[in-house]
Amino acid sequence: MRERALIEAIERTIEPRSGRVVRWTGDDAAVVQAGGAYSVTSIDAMVEGVHFRLGELSHEDVGHRALAGALSDIAAMGASAGEAYIALGLGERSAEADVLALCRGAESLAAQCGVTIAGGDITSAPVLTVCLTVVGWAADAERLVGRDGARAGDLVGVSGALGAAGAGLAVVEGRASGPAELAAAYRRPWPRLALGAALAEAGAGAMIDLSDGLATDAGHLGRRSGARLELELERLPVADGVAEVAAQLGRDPRHLAATAGDDYELCFCIAPELRRRAEEAGPVTWVGEVVAGPPAVSWRGQGGELELDGFEHEV
Amino acid sequence: MRERALIEAIERTIEPRSGRVVRWTGDDAAVVQAGGAYSVTSIDAMVEGVHFRLGELSHEDVGHRALAGALSDIAAMGASAGEAYIALGLGERSAEADVLALCRGAESLAAQCGVTIAGGDITSAPVLTVCLTVVGWAADAERLVGRDGARAGDLVGVSGALGAAGAGLAVVEGRASGPAELAAAYRRPWPRLALGAALAEAGAGAMIDLSDGLATDAGHLGRRSGARLELELERLPVADGVAEVAAQLGRDPRHLAATAGDDYELCFCIAPELRRRAEEAGPVTWVGEVVAGPPAVSWRGQGGELELDGFEHEV
Repeated sequence: MRERALIEAIERTIEPRSGRVVRWTGDDAAVVQAGGAYSVTSIDAMVEGVHFRLGELSHEDVGHRALAGALSDIAAMGASAGEAYIALGLGERSAEADVLALCRGAESLAAQCGVTIAGGDITSAPVLTVCLTVVGWAADAERLVGRDGARAGDLVGVSGALGAAGAGLAVVEGRASGPAELAAAYRRPWPRLALGAALAEAGAGAMIDLSDGLATDAGHLGRRSGARLELELERLPVADGVAEVAAQLGRDPRHLAATAGDDYELCFCIAPELRRRAEEAGPVTWVGEVVAGPPAVSWRGQGGELELDGFEHEV
Repeated sequence: MRERALIEAIERTIEPRSGRVVRWTGDDAAVVQAGGAYSVTSIDAMVEGVHFRLGELSHEDVGHRALAGALSDIAAMGASAGEAYIALGLGERSAEADVLALCRGAESLAAQCGVTIAGGDITSAPVLTVCLTVVGWAADAERLVGRDGARAGDLVGVSGALGAAGAGLAVVEGRASGPAELAAAYRRPWPRLALGAALAEAGAGAMIDLSDGLATDAGHLGRRSGARLELELERLPVADGVAEVAAQLGRDPRHLAATAGDDYELCFCIAPELRRRAEEAGPVTWVGEVVAGPPAVSWRGQGGELELDGFEHEV
């Protein structure tokens, strides 16, 4: 029975890594001890031909990337990552070795993040489909950071540097050439779990991960908070190599950094008196302020108000 | 933006129904208070053309059925159902009204089971794909029932009656005619949450839900427990109307009941001295015993030992 043998082979590629996991794979459901904590759960699906193309990504990349994208949601809540559950839809072209490579890619990231892949499901599908549910934990729900806590007067910060994954996609697709770090940023994004927890601890009032690009995701913060995020294009931290790729694409590197997705950096809003604490949490750049006004995001550039189109997430 | 409008429309079709749910949809992840409890989590995917055909099932049926199948795993652990997270892959033919009908089907079952649909994701996909993660809770991990606790001497019981969904599929596909209850059993299975919890409380040592059919699923209990489940075909509780359909298909109704899937009844093993307690838990039928021997399931019929092929789950 191919499915059972495959499940057993997958189980050999993953391992439990927390005493909290009481029952792991092998039963109808995994059992995780809660112990007074709050569970923080997110579900994400990635579909071949929609979110990625095989050939541009290896199966290991797909496993890493699907888990990274899901864990990034846990980071954006400021929670501590716990367990992941993975449902695979396998197309006819998926060989057993491909599936195991995908699981190794996910498991390698899980190991580095202290995450247990605690359960899963396998079925047939027209194309490779990876559905990830991730569960994080927090001792105190008050410390978790939603999208709804931005207040007029807050500073808006982003972590790391932006545009690397978007430029990397152009490199991977052969539309431009650029340093290998850009393709790696697209193929193997890193969930900012430690930074997300530190920013929550520092008192961030609202936070989101940049999966669809700052222009789109900052808009989610504004709408959910009932405030306007006023961002300055000139202040954006543009990743190394993005200018080189943007030039080949005939684009402004800051526009690319503002609208390209898949960076999985964090955007957060915090009261100005907590600015120093946020800077001590990790590498952050201040890119704007929260103001009263219709819930949204607006951009200032050298030419005044700008219109930026949201990122089209699907390839 | 179609996706956001659709998500907002979906949010209007669902509602939170537990004070344990601290943050619901709208953030990067849902937050659920744990309070000393154990979380019990399962993930399942259902794919159009693999697990169901539109036309045979309405979108409301698909939503009900996907959630019922996932909750059935929580029932089989003896846990109390808590939250569900739903990732939808929408094919080009999925209209917004179809998606909302699917969510209504899931939400209606969720309401009847006290379950909160606490989060989700929407993306494009080649065909309609429904990935469900369900989380149950238990105060005591010792009370949860895995697949690995069957011991030689245990009695083997099943809940309810078998074969209705398999016969219903034949009716739905036009291969046979039969009472409307059979098609309903296929389209709208019911997760045995109360019975699963009662059987756990009664002291069941091993339990599984019958998604792939008793012949296949009892084998999982045997293999995980390192014992052999010896079942008697004559003892199977065959659902009303199955004989009529089986006759049209030229099949033995008990074979159909043993091998057809999707009944979502429970199969469990329990020490003989707890027999009365199990019978007080709900409608159960004793179908065999656990014996020492190579881990597996074996069947006795009037002609002696029988070979039964496992159910082919995918349509």
